Amino acid sequence: MAPKNQHVKEVMDRLLDRVMVEDPVDDIKLRLRKFVAERDWQQFNTPKNLSMALIAEAGELVEHFQWLTDEQSKNLDNEQLKAVSHELADIFVYLIRLADELNIDLIKATNEKMLINRKKYPAEKVKGSANKYTYYD
Amino acid sequence: MAPKNQHVKEVMDRLLDRVMVEDPVDDIKLRLRKFVAERDWQQFNTPKNLSMALIAEAGELVEHFQWLTDEQSKNLDNEQLKAVSHELADIFVYLIRLADELNIDLIKATNEKMLINRKKYPAEKVKGSANKYTYYD
Amino acid sequence: MAPKNQHVKEVMDRLLDRVMVEDPVDDIKLRLRKFVAERDWQQFNTPKNLSMALIAEAGELVEHFQWLTDEQSKNLDNEQLKAVSHELADIFVYLIRLADELNIDLIKATNEKMLINRKKYPAEKVKGSANKYTYYD
Amino acid sequence: MAPKNQHVKEVMDRLLDRVMVEDPVDDIKLRLRKFVAERDWQQFNTPKNLSMALIAEAGELVEHFQWLTDEQSKNLDNEQLKAVSHELADIFVYLIRLADELNIDLIKATNEKMLINRKKYPAEKVKGSANKYTYYD
Repeated sequence: MAPKNQHVKEVMDRLLDRVMVEDPVDDIKLRLRKFVAERDWQQFNTPKNLSMALIAEAGELVEHFQWLTDEQSKNLDNEQLKAVSHELADIFVYLIRLADELNIDLIKATNEKMLINRKKYPAEKVKGSANKYTYYD
Repeated sequence: MAPKNQHVKEVMDRLLDRVMVEDPVDDIKLRLRKFVAERDWQQFNTPKNLSMALIAEAGELVEHFQWLTDEQSKNLDNEQLKAVSHELADIFVYLIRLADELNIDLIKATNEKMLINRKKYPAEKVKGSANKYTYYD
Repeated sequence: MAPKNQHVKEVMDRLLDRVMVEDPVDDIKLRLRKFVAERDWQQFNTPKNLSMALIAEAGELVEHFQWLTDEQSKNLDNEQLKAVSHELADIFVYLIRLADELNIDLIKATNEKMLINRKKYPAEKVKGSANKYTYYD
Repeated sequence: MAPKNQHVKEVMDRLLDRVMVEDPVDDIKLRLRKFVAERDWQQFNTPKNLSMALIAEAGELVEHFQWLTDEQSKNLDNEQLKAVSHELADIFVYLIRLADELNIDLIKATNEKMLINRKKYPAEKVKGSANKYTYYD
């Protein structure tokens, strides 16, 4: 291989390394594993328990919105927004932990589900309708 | 700039483009925006409504585990695993949509929250204890 | 009517009054209406909002149990038991409020649903099995 | 005792019997115990599992309201109303079962909590405000 191509290849390898490291979901997953192991919390992180922790956090999220109008829910002040962002983070943490414990690839599962939704709710058929039986779940 | 470095720069640019495109959460976020727009569902996607949709999906997740023992919850068969993976996907979809509507960077918020958790629950102090007041929420 | 029967009738009327007053769900319903009216909170008590408040309280309930084993969940200490009893009360409050706003008779609806469950899950057929598709929902 | 009073006493006793039988929550509690025992489901009815079943039902309730406006949530059609009444019944069933398993008197706990709420939210102070930190939980 010519030196020039050798150089390019090395740069590409270094970049690909960064790409892997930078997959943000994978990165959080690995750091959560370490976080749990350091605290010896693995024993509590059964899928059953994690599903409960996830919905308890979702309950805290809902609590922020329960007395707001739709308009108010779109216009949170900075303090509310910070608090809500931390609730979303808590849910994400348990979602990633749960997927990890079950060896589920969260991104792959989501892409798969989005394909199903695309077929289930053809744009021309459900346009503008939010009937609960024709929504994306 | 010498031709050789020019070539390297071009390769790096192309790679960096791919890195951006391949951020999986961002990618899903953009496709969900399109999915919602094509169906004219933007009107229903208020933060308040999305928080409800998220917890309703979390309820479906919990339903899978409610009568299982911890051991059973770790050993789902393939059919259960597929169904659970789709529930996780549904939750992820609404989590990403909600963050998007509120202009919250989900990854950044999660990293921020994980730093808070790290300080709140020092490993040496909480090791092996799952007291609900000293867990990661 | 003879004096004797007159006396009996009066006692019966007084007792029937007590029966009405003592229907505990109805009694709580009426006191909650008053509680809400005194605070001018009627405006926030839409069925939609009340369903959110109810599930947020259910999330607080779940939080108490999420890291406990089944055995631990059966043996709460007095402090936990008091806290859990107040979560159950919060859920009951919103359940009664929601039924009231929708003019649903909670007791009648429950009796109706229990009849459906009885037919759906014949004892001899589901005995000892907790398959989620053959349980009482 | 004179015959007349004897008669009154007998009527009162019969009425008091009916009063006891007619406490609707107690009545449902006893019938649920029987329902569970006949199906040998006692083993699954741990407080932990019942808290999960309760919130899963609450999720089904929320699903009915998630895409509705406040106004629409007040004006359900008969079919929706019937479905929602059955979700409320499902939640009530698990609430009563959970209280029963923990030996909590649901009515007593609710009355106790309502007294706390009354002190926590003085009418003159919170009138017309739904700030989530000054609401009734």
